[in-house]
Amino acid sequence: MATSSPYQQLRDELAEIDALSGIEGLLQWDEQVMMPSGDGAASARAKASSALAGVVHAKRTASSLGELIELCGGRKVTQEKLGADATTFDVANVKRAAEGFDRASRVPPAMAKKEAELGSRGYRAWMEAKKNSDYSVFAPVLKEWVELVKERSSLINPGGDPYDTALDDYERGLTSARLDEIFAPVKAEVSALIKQVYDVEEGPVALRSVGGKSVLTGDFDAEKQAALSRQIALEMGFDLTAGRLDVSAHPFTGGADFTDVRMTTRYKSDDLSEGLTGTIHETGHALYEQGRPREYAGQPVSQAHSMGVHESQSLLWERMVALSPDFSTFLLPKLSDAFFGQFDGVTNDQLHASFNTVKKPSFIRVESDELTYPMHVILRYELEQGLIKGDVDVDALPELWNAKMEELLGHRPPDDAKGVLQDVHWSAGAIGYFPTYLLGAMYACQIYETALTKLPGLEDEIRKGEFARLREWLNKNVHALGSSFDSADALLEHVTGKPLDGEAFVKYLREKYTKLYGL
Amino acid sequence: MATSSPYQQLRDELAEIDALSGIEGLLQWDEQVMMPSGDGAASARAKASSALAGVVHAKRTASSLGELIELCGGRKVTQEKLGADATTFDVANVKRAAEGFDRASRVPPAMAKKEAELGSRGYRAWMEAKKNSDYSVFAPVLKEWVELVKERSSLINPGGDPYDTALDDYERGLTSARLDEIFAPVKAEVSALIKQVYDVEEGPVALRSVGGKSVLTGDFDAEKQAALSRQIALEMGFDLTAGRLDVSAHPFTGGADFTDVRMTTRYKSDDLSEGLTGTIHETGHALYEQGRPREYAGQPVSQAHSMGVHESQSLLWERMVALSPDFSTFLLPKLSDAFFGQFDGVTNDQLHASFNTVKKPSFIRVESDELTYPMHVILRYELEQGLIKGDVDVDALPELWNAKMEELLGHRPPDDAKGVLQDVHWSAGAIGYFPTYLLGAMYACQIYETALTKLPGLEDEIRKGEFARLREWLNKNVHALGSSFDSADALLEHVTGKPLDGEAFVKYLREKYTKLYGL
Repeated sequence: MATSSPYQQLRDELAEIDALSGIEGLLQWDEQVMMPSGDGAASARAKASSALAGVVHAKRTASSLGELIELCGGRKVTQEKLGADATTFDVANVKRAAEGFDRASRVPPAMAKKEAELGSRGYRAWMEAKKNSDYSVFAPVLKEWVELVKERSSLINPGGDPYDTALDDYERGLTSARLDEIFAPVKAEVSALIKQVYDVEEGPVALRSVGGKSVLTGDFDAEKQAALSRQIALEMGFDLTAGRLDVSAHPFTGGADFTDVRMTTRYKSDDLSEGLTGTIHETGHALYEQGRPREYAGQPVSQAHSMGVHESQSLLWERMVALSPDFSTFLLPKLSDAFFGQFDGVTNDQLHASFNTVKKPSFIRVESDELTYPMHVILRYELEQGLIKGDVDVDALPELWNAKMEELLGHRPPDDAKGVLQDVHWSAGAIGYFPTYLLGAMYACQIYETALTKLPGLEDEIRKGEFARLREWLNKNVHALGSSFDSADALLEHVTGKPLDGEAFVKYLREKYTKLYGL
Repeated sequence: MATSSPYQQLRDELAEIDALSGIEGLLQWDEQVMMPSGDGAASARAKASSALAGVVHAKRTASSLGELIELCGGRKVTQEKLGADATTFDVANVKRAAEGFDRASRVPPAMAKKEAELGSRGYRAWMEAKKNSDYSVFAPVLKEWVELVKERSSLINPGGDPYDTALDDYERGLTSARLDEIFAPVKAEVSALIKQVYDVEEGPVALRSVGGKSVLTGDFDAEKQAALSRQIALEMGFDLTAGRLDVSAHPFTGGADFTDVRMTTRYKSDDLSEGLTGTIHETGHALYEQGRPREYAGQPVSQAHSMGVHESQSLLWERMVALSPDFSTFLLPKLSDAFFGQFDGVTNDQLHASFNTVKKPSFIRVESDELTYPMHVILRYELEQGLIKGDVDVDALPELWNAKMEELLGHRPPDDAKGVLQDVHWSAGAIGYFPTYLLGAMYACQIYETALTKLPGLEDEIRKGEFARLREWLNKNVHALGSSFDSADALLEHVTGKPLDGEAFVKYLREKYTKLYGL
């Protein structure tokens, strides 16, 4: 392709936007990890971020960009249109650019401004509401968000279902019809499985001889935790020449682009599990970022597929690998080395059971375990869908929340701070986001089952701490594919031979917890 | 002033440019201190920085900005023009904006691009030339720079003297006529003083009993050096809620703005002096940054006055304070605490003499001491002035350099790597920059002499490690004045009652070294 072709011009424009957007990523990292604590720094940073966001928004919505996208065929782009050298990635690249342009340019500046304003007002209201467990402080903001999300959806996708449009923002091509289909068996069967597990008063089989006590609680030096976690991140394949690992109050993975991936984690001295599994979780995200297709650097097609697929990569390493019995076999000698005397007499099974003990009660999503987690997500999904469809009234939300908790998990939160007010998402208008968490867990399960069949001996390798073959397989089959697929189902079909299958996820959980709890 | 007044609009525009430019500062800090080491990260960062620089340049040269500046009176702004509420700072603000706009907008994009290209080509050529001590690799680049600097000067200040225009870039209002006047006594008398000191074979008086050996060389734990340096930076008044202190290969002070000032330093285990005085030097810069006038945040008038005045603040703390006998009295017990046993029997005078021993030979500017430093700068000043005026041929530079070294310091460099190729500045086209280093030292001396008369008991306070009164005086008289003066001489006159006085600086050096070396 000649450098002056419309597609080359489009690529250049997109790469510039991506470079500026990478700076936004760095600023966010810096704010969480490095920025001085003074109010002045926070306020100056807010102005700087807002100035940069204005620049990026102007470029993302420039009519010249829209014209280039249309010249390249827009959403109806074909390989023929782009020329002889064009690949399927180039075709997907133009599609992703067209989708992104529409999403950005169909929201008028006044609405974008209102969203930003409501976001910061909403955050403050939510903080206060949660602090005092007073939902009435938050309800007015949520009402505004519900209206704004509907309005935005009607502009982005005129005539479309507003909640589906919101879902598509986080998970390309997803609809609530498809979610209902996927979540139905999970809701029905996992809820029942939780009740069965809750009925086992003696706890996990392997911990009964020690009175049910987890071997992961106690007093563990945070620096030793950090050193061990760092070592495991490196063994998993995190590339420190293309990233950093730091500590922050709220763990996340961000940075500039795949050449500079910055993840953070945190360590609690009384709980070994959180820092370790948290680091492994973030490393899963980081490996996805570092593994994105380099030959499309700066292009939309090089981005990770979606929120849900991103979460699948963190959860595959966290749950399918680190919470497996094989990983406990690998880990136990390392724990014994790092924490002298504290793991004397502990067995692999006890370590594995400690990582997998089901919480009872389980009120807080972010603290919940693999088994109760799906219920937390389904609850939010049903409620937020109801909010947008008009079936759920904002004022009725706390009671509906508590009733659903009772239905799905068997217990009611003691107050709204531990109920409807626990998550920040809705205060930022992130409606349609929660389902991606559970989708991620389900994708992870299905992708890992395929990995087990494609990579014979994988469990042996995990017992020995050999992660290279799994990482390379994930790289080839997920990371390096970027955003080249139109939907997660299409990606799943490519990787696993079938779209997402809710039943397989249920089966996995049933087998795991049946064994752990001797059901 | 109504929010819609042209001046308010101008302030808003300038604040946005400043916010984006603060992001550039953060990126530079990050690149030196945090960025992963991979080539990919460096290359992606170069693209991102270049994209942001393009955005900032476009805003700095926007015709709409020029029109607003003219509406406010441009370089001829008056208080009457700006309205009843306008202060002298507002007037200076418009002037500084006008100067900045002219400097940026009179350079056409093609020339700015050529400068960027020559800058990176020049850096590579200089690196190679220095590595092999081969001036012929660097000479062609320097020839290009000489022409480009002249061309740029003729555009920025048509009809003006090109070297004066280059000087003005770094030190507002400075001319070579004024520099000649200021530097003349220094050149004549300091050179003679150096020869006197060099003739004292026995070294500083206080070190004669220990065979001339510095008490600051040996083996000093780098972490203990860092902890001590940090403590001193905090005692000097560096505000960690509005800044950071990290380690980097090349110490510098940068960051986003006065709310987020990031300084770096480095420590050598065999030399206690460099890390300690380096930290104090950078803290001097940082205090200036943190002390800029907050009520003009984001405005040009809130910026530090100039390179030279910035250097005066670092050198005031480094040379006038930390290299004084009083500071050695304060420091010695701290060194004894930090480095157990290593300062047994050392006296205050020995410590002070160790900090102030004159290098012989003194080839390298950045390693040189307070006494030989002025000669290094004057040499560069005379040569670069000659290059621009056409009196010095690029090809003759190495020989002229060596001859001047012999004239001013009494010794010739062994090769060009230790001579004409030692500094990076010219490879980046920074011609007119070197004089600010010596100006900084001279400003520092004159400002500190005033401080001593205005703050009776100051030397006592320094012996006790009490720096608050000096810092506050500097804040009020220098830092908080920002760029409100049209020239450094005007600022000096405001602070010290007279413009810069070369004789006073010579007198200070003569007294100091006469005592130290028993001349």
